[in-house]
Amino acid sequence: MEERQHTSREFERELQEIKEGLLYLGAMIETAIVRAINALMDRDTELARKVICDDNEIDQLDVEIEDKCIRVLALRQPTARDLRFITTAIKINGHLERIGDMAVNIAEKVIFLNEEPQMKPYIDIPRMAGIAQGMVRESLDSLVNEDVDLATKVRRDDETIDDLNDQIFRELLTYMMEDARTIHRALIISQISKSLERISDHAVGIADMVIYMVTGKTVRHEQPHCEPPEK
Amino acid sequence: MEERQHTSREFERELQEIKEGLLYLGAMIETAIVRAINALMDRDTELARKVICDDNEIDQLDVEIEDKCIRVLALRQPTARDLRFITTAIKINGHLERIGDMAVNIAEKVIFLNEEPQMKPYIDIPRMAGIAQGMVRESLDSLVNEDVDLATKVRRDDETIDDLNDQIFRELLTYMMEDARTIHRALIISQISKSLERISDHAVGIADMVIYMVTGKTVRHEQPHCEPPEK
Repeated sequence: MEERQHTSREFERELQEIKEGLLYLGAMIETAIVRAINALMDRDTELARKVICDDNEIDQLDVEIEDKCIRVLALRQPTARDLRFITTAIKINGHLERIGDMAVNIAEKVIFLNEEPQMKPYIDIPRMAGIAQGMVRESLDSLVNEDVDLATKVRRDDETIDDLNDQIFRELLTYMMEDARTIHRALIISQISKSLERISDHAVGIADMVIYMVTGKTVRHEQPHCEPPEK
Repeated sequence: MEERQHTSREFERELQEIKEGLLYLGAMIETAIVRAINALMDRDTELARKVICDDNEIDQLDVEIEDKCIRVLALRQPTARDLRFITTAIKINGHLERIGDMAVNIAEKVIFLNEEPQMKPYIDIPRMAGIAQGMVRESLDSLVNEDVDLATKVRRDDETIDDLNDQIFRELLTYMMEDARTIHRALIISQISKSLERISDHAVGIADMVIYMVTGKTVRHEQPHCEPPEK
């Protein structure tokens, strides 16, 4: 009985460590997003390089968290809710690591842009980045507090991001048509916008997993896409 | 003893089912890629719509496979090699589903392009698609045969894809600069090229998991990216 009690407390601690690892990873990733966009706005190539270098640490933490999840699966053989938490953690970890890669993609584009003459202020990009960053945080908050409402809000915010991405695309198209010299830069900016949209998609992926973990309901393919959207 | 034997055979069957599910999903996804590109080359909007509709089936299979993996984790509490296989299967399943989404993205772009006058033949796009499709198949072959050499080849092919993507990007840039009327279409084609590049990345993700499963070695962040590439 004593042994069981001990093991159980140990197990609780391991689950807590996984959760804390995810939150720490989430914080690193939020920083990476903020810095990548600041590097764009301030034309700060050094900062962009820092985002790229720091991703090594994110990658390392990604591997550590996954290893810990698999170790806990092997040693504790969890069932029911705990099992659902760990499989959720493995998938959330993957989403976070991928968001880190998106921040690196943005930083790489920023280094290119900073060598070129500045185009008009990137008004919608920081707005989009702010929303995407908020979605990442809220998706993790929804994990910590098992808050399905907040996870659902993250899903809704994704629509705003998609709209902004479309709007930025159309605006850039206008620039390119008017002045061929802007084409390369505009293309790169549209790629930054696309990376932000993918960050938003990953935040939704996290939120979906939280909804699954708490309710047991799979929502990630709720809207069948048989009506091809117009573009 | 009899009971144990029975359970073990049952368990073997479940693992086999998961493997077959992944292969079936892989075949559906290969079909989706081929059709999306045929829809582009033949200007066949109906076929593009079919790719979009059929993705519902892919999404459903994705959920089924993941559910089965989690059920097996819960009921059989596998350890060591079997545990590694199932966590690998969960991640491979995620990659495959995401590849399906890329095929849908391509099909959506194709529908747009088919309404516009044709640009010059899309020489490098089908070539890139052929390589990416081959990578998806080989990554799954490497899973079935636990073939680390083949998984390593998939990792190498990714470089060819990246080069083709850069080449297409530069070529499209030239078109856009020369004739502003091509800009919108060229942008859309560059997005198709980007989607193919992401398919290749997911195939590498699958290959990395196979290498992990067979050797226990994590290769997915082997190259630290502290030397920011030029773009």
